[in-house]
Amino acid sequence: MGEARVTIADLARRLGLSQSAVSYALNGAPGVSETTRERVRAMAREMGWRPSSAARSLRSRRSRAIGVVLTRHAEQLATEPFYYRLIAGLETVLSPRDYSLLLSLTESGPAAHELYRQWSQEQKVDGVVLFDLVTEDSRIALLEELGIPMVLMGEVPNHSAVLHVAGHEDTDSLVVMQHVASLGHENIGFLGGPVALVHEQARRRGMRRAARLTGARLVQCQAEYTIEGGRRAAADLLARHPQLTALICSSDLICLGALQACRAAGLQVPQDISLVSWDDSIPMAVVTPAITALDRDPAGMGKIAARLLVGHLEDGPLGGAPTEVTSSLVIRESTGPLRAPGRT
Amino acid sequence: MGEARVTIADLARRLGLSQSAVSYALNGAPGVSETTRERVRAMAREMGWRPSSAARSLRSRRSRAIGVVLTRHAEQLATEPFYYRLIAGLETVLSPRDYSLLLSLTESGPAAHELYRQWSQEQKVDGVVLFDLVTEDSRIALLEELGIPMVLMGEVPNHSAVLHVAGHEDTDSLVVMQHVASLGHENIGFLGGPVALVHEQARRRGMRRAARLTGARLVQCQAEYTIEGGRRAAADLLARHPQLTALICSSDLICLGALQACRAAGLQVPQDISLVSWDDSIPMAVVTPAITALDRDPAGMGKIAARLLVGHLEDGPLGGAPTEVTSSLVIRESTGPLRAPGRT
Repeated sequence: MGEARVTIADLARRLGLSQSAVSYALNGAPGVSETTRERVRAMAREMGWRPSSAARSLRSRRSRAIGVVLTRHAEQLATEPFYYRLIAGLETVLSPRDYSLLLSLTESGPAAHELYRQWSQEQKVDGVVLFDLVTEDSRIALLEELGIPMVLMGEVPNHSAVLHVAGHEDTDSLVVMQHVASLGHENIGFLGGPVALVHEQARRRGMRRAARLTGARLVQCQAEYTIEGGRRAAADLLARHPQLTALICSSDLICLGALQACRAAGLQVPQDISLVSWDDSIPMAVVTPAITALDRDPAGMGKIAARLLVGHLEDGPLGGAPTEVTSSLVIRESTGPLRAPGRT
Repeated sequence: MGEARVTIADLARRLGLSQSAVSYALNGAPGVSETTRERVRAMAREMGWRPSSAARSLRSRRSRAIGVVLTRHAEQLATEPFYYRLIAGLETVLSPRDYSLLLSLTESGPAAHELYRQWSQEQKVDGVVLFDLVTEDSRIALLEELGIPMVLMGEVPNHSAVLHVAGHEDTDSLVVMQHVASLGHENIGFLGGPVALVHEQARRRGMRRAARLTGARLVQCQAEYTIEGGRRAAADLLARHPQLTALICSSDLICLGALQACRAAGLQVPQDISLVSWDDSIPMAVVTPAITALDRDPAGMGKIAARLLVGHLEDGPLGGAPTEVTSSLVIRESTGPLRAPGRT
């Protein structure tokens, strides 16, 4: 039997794991459980797997660049503070370690695939960070096939990615819901973002669960991640559900739009309706009324993602396990006690 | 005489031009005046210059990446909308043409030099965009030496860079000054950014000139490009010059800080003091009072820079000359007529 006859793909198939999980386990990269690591190593011994020297040498040809493909329009990149706080977090870890960030915007999924294939052929990146995960995200399978290490920003159902920054949508939902419930609100509207996104699905589930736990009545709708998208969605929701006394918005821009819609409907914030944003940013702090917002520490998320990926690339954990990011609710003027009907 | 004995460096020396200017002229790239182009070509014929085939072949080895090195802290990248709008503008042009953006943050000039040398050795970028130019900017000479094409965001004194996006500091200063002067303000404070930056020097000159033209009395000071920097500088300026009735701030974050300082000093905006920001962004539009701001169209600047550079790399102007960016003053609530003393 020649060397490298048993491949990582063979091991993955036998173990029912993804190729990247097997690869991470064999390379001693962080993130795989000890049980999995042992299972993979046992199977590797059993099947007579040996590291391919070609692959090893290939792996040492580092580009020292981490790739990020955003499938969003340039205008969104220009206005959404969440992304640039996240990218700044990545840079905080990458720059001192001499990694650059290769950034590209594409308008569609297929274009992103094309770009990953090109990056792979030209060895342009050592690894990538995946944002805006969708269900059955085809980018993951492609990157596994191309052998490009990746870290996922978030979790994908039915996929056990080894390197991922876990979301906190359940806890976050509960924190937000309990805050408005504690102010006496019982009819809550949730203006979510595009439902194709895995983290938006998780927020909708989290909000439903939080509503059950607090006994609130919840209506949900979908909005684009823009001020205009938030304005339209909120105007529509308020017209259809006049009983709502609190709106929870899935981004800061949606929330600025919702504020406009409330004003246009003659509602005062927070006297008539309370507003909460899922993302904190400078506009949330300086707008009048200042908006109660969930600071999910996007820079911290970016730092963790970069540490995980660099740690994996350099074959070992990097200065201890990355610290978990925790969200904190910054309470400002836009949320207030429910005004009893007729009490005005 | 063998081929390529006369180099572009020889031509540049004889002509008293930069190497890149000569190179652009010979390659038929946009941006060089016809007179210069003819002078360069005449000298090339006279000295017997011929294109080196090695250089030609080298030039065809494209990385399809444009490099940007920002010598700013990650936190600044995370909070300053100007950069994001500019980078988004670059991406608007680069992405559809299959170019990626290689982004790196460094904390110092020397580290930036190191990175450019590395990028050059590894042929990581086809060209770079230079931001935050300083007087006698040593990056320019280095990039010329490395033969990396560059586009400058702004103009450097005593340097005739062929590819640059011209600033409008003179016109911008006059527009801002005339607006406050037309409201009756005669004692104006200018909170500039770091004076090491060429565009900040140009703004200070522009403001002095505009003050002379409008007959205003001007005091200038320096602030960091942060909210806290703006707050400190404004507090200090107001304490030393209580006669000021208008403050012009060199960035949106400086302006948010100045607003805090005015409030802390018990001054109402715009009743007691008017505020203008040199950069427009979402926070300027949503803060109370909404801030009068100069929209310098950073996305437009980014688009022009990318078009110039890609046009140069692909050896010809790209779909006509790039359109000039013009600034527009967005008048909001933060500027108002001078309240005559004792009229309260």
